[in-house]
Amino acid sequence: MKITDRAATDSAASEAPPPGRLRFAHVALVGKYQAQGMRDLLADLADWLQLQGVEVSLEAETARNTELFTYTALTVSELARQCDLAVVVGGDGTMLGFARQVAQHDLPLVGINHGRLGFITDVPLGQFRQALTDLLHGNWVEDTRHLIDGEVIRGGRRIFAGQALNDVVLSRGATNGMVEFHVEIGQEFVARLLADGLIVASPTGSTAYALAVGGPIVHPGLAGWVLTPIASHSLTTRPIVLPDSEEVRITVVSGRESAANFDMQRLASLLPGDVVCVRRSSDKVRFLHPRDWSYYATLREKLHWYGGGA
Amino acid sequence: MKITDRAATDSAASEAPPPGRLRFAHVALVGKYQAQGMRDLLADLADWLQLQGVEVSLEAETARNTELFTYTALTVSELARQCDLAVVVGGDGTMLGFARQVAQHDLPLVGINHGRLGFITDVPLGQFRQALTDLLHGNWVEDTRHLIDGEVIRGGRRIFAGQALNDVVLSRGATNGMVEFHVEIGQEFVARLLADGLIVASPTGSTAYALAVGGPIVHPGLAGWVLTPIASHSLTTRPIVLPDSEEVRITVVSGRESAANFDMQRLASLLPGDVVCVRRSSDKVRFLHPRDWSYYATLREKLHWYGGGA
Amino acid sequence: MKITDRAATDSAASEAPPPGRLRFAHVALVGKYQAQGMRDLLADLADWLQLQGVEVSLEAETARNTELFTYTALTVSELARQCDLAVVVGGDGTMLGFARQVAQHDLPLVGINHGRLGFITDVPLGQFRQALTDLLHGNWVEDTRHLIDGEVIRGGRRIFAGQALNDVVLSRGATNGMVEFHVEIGQEFVARLLADGLIVASPTGSTAYALAVGGPIVHPGLAGWVLTPIASHSLTTRPIVLPDSEEVRITVVSGRESAANFDMQRLASLLPGDVVCVRRSSDKVRFLHPRDWSYYATLREKLHWYGGGA
Amino acid sequence: MKITDRAATDSAASEAPPPGRLRFAHVALVGKYQAQGMRDLLADLADWLQLQGVEVSLEAETARNTELFTYTALTVSELARQCDLAVVVGGDGTMLGFARQVAQHDLPLVGINHGRLGFITDVPLGQFRQALTDLLHGNWVEDTRHLIDGEVIRGGRRIFAGQALNDVVLSRGATNGMVEFHVEIGQEFVARLLADGLIVASPTGSTAYALAVGGPIVHPGLAGWVLTPIASHSLTTRPIVLPDSEEVRITVVSGRESAANFDMQRLASLLPGDVVCVRRSSDKVRFLHPRDWSYYATLREKLHWYGGGA
Repeated sequence: MKITDRAATDSAASEAPPPGRLRFAHVALVGKYQAQGMRDLLADLADWLQLQGVEVSLEAETARNTELFTYTALTVSELARQCDLAVVVGGDGTMLGFARQVAQHDLPLVGINHGRLGFITDVPLGQFRQALTDLLHGNWVEDTRHLIDGEVIRGGRRIFAGQALNDVVLSRGATNGMVEFHVEIGQEFVARLLADGLIVASPTGSTAYALAVGGPIVHPGLAGWVLTPIASHSLTTRPIVLPDSEEVRITVVSGRESAANFDMQRLASLLPGDVVCVRRSSDKVRFLHPRDWSYYATLREKLHWYGGGA
Repeated sequence: MKITDRAATDSAASEAPPPGRLRFAHVALVGKYQAQGMRDLLADLADWLQLQGVEVSLEAETARNTELFTYTALTVSELARQCDLAVVVGGDGTMLGFARQVAQHDLPLVGINHGRLGFITDVPLGQFRQALTDLLHGNWVEDTRHLIDGEVIRGGRRIFAGQALNDVVLSRGATNGMVEFHVEIGQEFVARLLADGLIVASPTGSTAYALAVGGPIVHPGLAGWVLTPIASHSLTTRPIVLPDSEEVRITVVSGRESAANFDMQRLASLLPGDVVCVRRSSDKVRFLHPRDWSYYATLREKLHWYGGGA
Repeated sequence: MKITDRAATDSAASEAPPPGRLRFAHVALVGKYQAQGMRDLLADLADWLQLQGVEVSLEAETARNTELFTYTALTVSELARQCDLAVVVGGDGTMLGFARQVAQHDLPLVGINHGRLGFITDVPLGQFRQALTDLLHGNWVEDTRHLIDGEVIRGGRRIFAGQALNDVVLSRGATNGMVEFHVEIGQEFVARLLADGLIVASPTGSTAYALAVGGPIVHPGLAGWVLTPIASHSLTTRPIVLPDSEEVRITVVSGRESAANFDMQRLASLLPGDVVCVRRSSDKVRFLHPRDWSYYATLREKLHWYGGGA
Repeated sequence: MKITDRAATDSAASEAPPPGRLRFAHVALVGKYQAQGMRDLLADLADWLQLQGVEVSLEAETARNTELFTYTALTVSELARQCDLAVVVGGDGTMLGFARQVAQHDLPLVGINHGRLGFITDVPLGQFRQALTDLLHGNWVEDTRHLIDGEVIRGGRRIFAGQALNDVVLSRGATNGMVEFHVEIGQEFVARLLADGLIVASPTGSTAYALAVGGPIVHPGLAGWVLTPIASHSLTTRPIVLPDSEEVRITVVSGRESAANFDMQRLASLLPGDVVCVRRSSDKVRFLHPRDWSYYATLREKLHWYGGGA
């Protein structure tokens, strides 16, 4: 199963394009600016892109923090409207944060990994020239992932709304005991759960936090939620994969200081009685991968399968 | 998410029907004939059904083994053509065996549980009158499950073909060490695996054998395969859920005396080099459930979730 | 393997003792005073004990909160010195809290369960008369469990010390990402760990929190630590059982707002650089069980093994 | 906790010994003779040992299969009596097979790894000179492991007896369903189990097959059995670590074609009613490790912990 629509339907894609006939005219650069050496790395990348005939802008925070002022700095909302590709340099965390911000736009994203290979930042730093050359000339694999829309309802009113690409994580406070959850999907009652927490993950998130607490890997081609309990009091609760066509509603029955975490980046405090609603967003993210990209190859490499690890 | 098309679109369904306006005219009875007391149980059921105005036939093997000759005995293929409902009395194993045999036909099935509640034989014995009264009058929930088509290819030729509702299980012999598998889906290489075995389960099968070796529960509304390794040599292999729109191909790289098991009921011996192909069948099984049936309620009861167990 | 020294060496034990020849003269009662109906329950129990010829005192907080003033109220330290048996009515949590307070004394404890059967409060409420009659006349099974001594070292100085019967749990704050730990035992480096937390459990604690995050059950007759990671970033970390003859030292390498929790009842905040030292205490708790008590029977019942659950 | 008695009590050990003052006079070589290049490897090793002044013999099967006849060939029982050290070249499987054969003797063993690092063959091939130099001069860490004595009782008579270093594995046949076991330890009933199988592992075996089915790692310094169910029908059964001071008795209640496997190398067929008894043997194996050897370092490397893997 391909999770992607290969650009091969575009007949020009597989031929060597005439120099200058680039598929992207204006590229934004976003970087994990705290990372060491990021300034030089972004400068290299920007110079190289400009040499290819592409207009280059830097995301404003990236520019300010790396003090790289040679290129136009654009805010995220400016670049989402003006650029036709964004190159994100960093790890999966950097990509998650940026992708959520531009999800309402149709901006395609490519991730260049700085550090360990990521699940969604999958171009190794040393191969950016070859990979971006391919992309600029239309040789890519497109991979669309829906966001998760989440909200917290208290006393009938929405007190928090957020988006996630990986997961919405409900969990207890560090100083407290278990939380009791009441879980529904659509009109149906699923289960009560006494646990440290509960992860509602998208297939994208199935290889993130949910994997560490025993969840399955779910291919992004499946439209499902992965509900994975964290340290369930009962030994018979198990990860469960449900269709994402209906909304998941989780009521906090009891448990102090619990919280809902969106991609482990944005947090809402919860009180008993609060309801966390999670549904598939109409917003989506478009990742572009190099043409030889394979979902399974990334899994094999990241998880050190056969030959690559224990 | 409902996995079912509730018959409520049929406006007659929810009203008390006039006596005699039954939705099924000819019902077949199938029983786990080895089970103690099955003869009396089937006789009761048959008499009661006849009283409702339904024509009753017994599946021939069931009739012969229980020596219940008061009703017409029909072979499976006869009843699949002549009856418009089959009532299966036994456990999930009895249902699996029968369902596969009638899958090419459009015969709806209802399972009455004799013993512990099953995942697919979900009418408790003590409630058959109420449940069947409802069904006869159109008050049901329909639940369709696709079969798995499997085959074994040796030296380019098909040497075995079989169907399964739950799973195709590849495993090592009792006297031997691990088997090495090469796993592909569609045109893509997924992984090599050194293990005691590998389960390819449908969502229906996700609550059967795969659950015992650590697989997730997958809702039948999702069109996916659950690939679950058995005792993988590597600690980083994990259950993976893949779209069932493409064929899974598993090559036995090495390992003596391995076998492929269909629903743990039919067996094919495997040699190194053999390829086991698994794809979604166009054949499907139609289960009818009582109207108050809930997939999640069955899970909660079977797995003793919250209040029901550890 | 018995974890116990059966009192059978006492030849009088198995004979019906002459009335009045009781093995315990002064019994303390401790109750989970928040629980509904606890006042009446304790009054019943106290009256019954007095009828047997035993002097009865109530633990002061229990007396004050239940307003049961008919019997002498003693502080924990008073009763630890004056009484020769304490009967604890409540759940495992109540017992854990009380047992730690009297561990320096040689006071034997018996737990009467109010609510669900506990691992260490194993006399069902409805059977207290029979069980206590047996105990008062010497028919018991004794079961000794060592406490865990823990301390937190910051900048070379001890800033916190605590005891636990079940476990010392290091974990991240609710609002933060993973914690990095450096784990040593005795003079040896064990592992670095990137995780939500790490549980150091005694065999007693192996059936508590550690079980919920995938740890093994460890028989109390084994002198070992069960180190169980919580949501480890790596899929190859596993629970590990180590001899408790040497000290476990865990350094918090990084991670904000982490904490060390003793029996999930007392808490110490941790900073990067802090070292949590865990060693077997010389303090121990003496539990008395009814003579027909079996460690395995409790496991079977609590975990719904075979016939008792899923 | 050290699992070893470091030879440091021997005051000569840490000093550079005078040439010729070797701690072992006669060394046996055993090789995994099927492995490619084994002849040259053993010839190198034998020549080097002889140069150090040691008398060298080859195990007879090793000599015959590699056609290396330059050195005396001794049967296993001859070399167990005549040699004072055996060097085993191969993997953990080769070592397991040989170690069981010489366990009644006091012969120390050292394992040189040919292929992937093993848990018990822990000298990398490329470092054999340094490691053996150290050993010959008394710089070693000794590590003693008890064998498991197993036997199969049918109708009150012993029909099979075997030894294992890692584990005794009871499992179902490939073509059959689950096996039902009745498990006892000492005089106590532990549990009934419906499963594909049950592993009784020593701490040594806890990092072998048991690890692949979810068992914990147990330090060899703990005198315990690790009972790990294989694909238990119940979700609440868990690995359990029990003291090895008493005998484990497993009765096959039902299940055709099941078998008991000793170190996955010797097999006994089982019938319903058969009892498999497992107890700690008085026979033990003495492994010598290089002085800088660490149990935890081997774990970290083999399991790719932190920095070394996923």
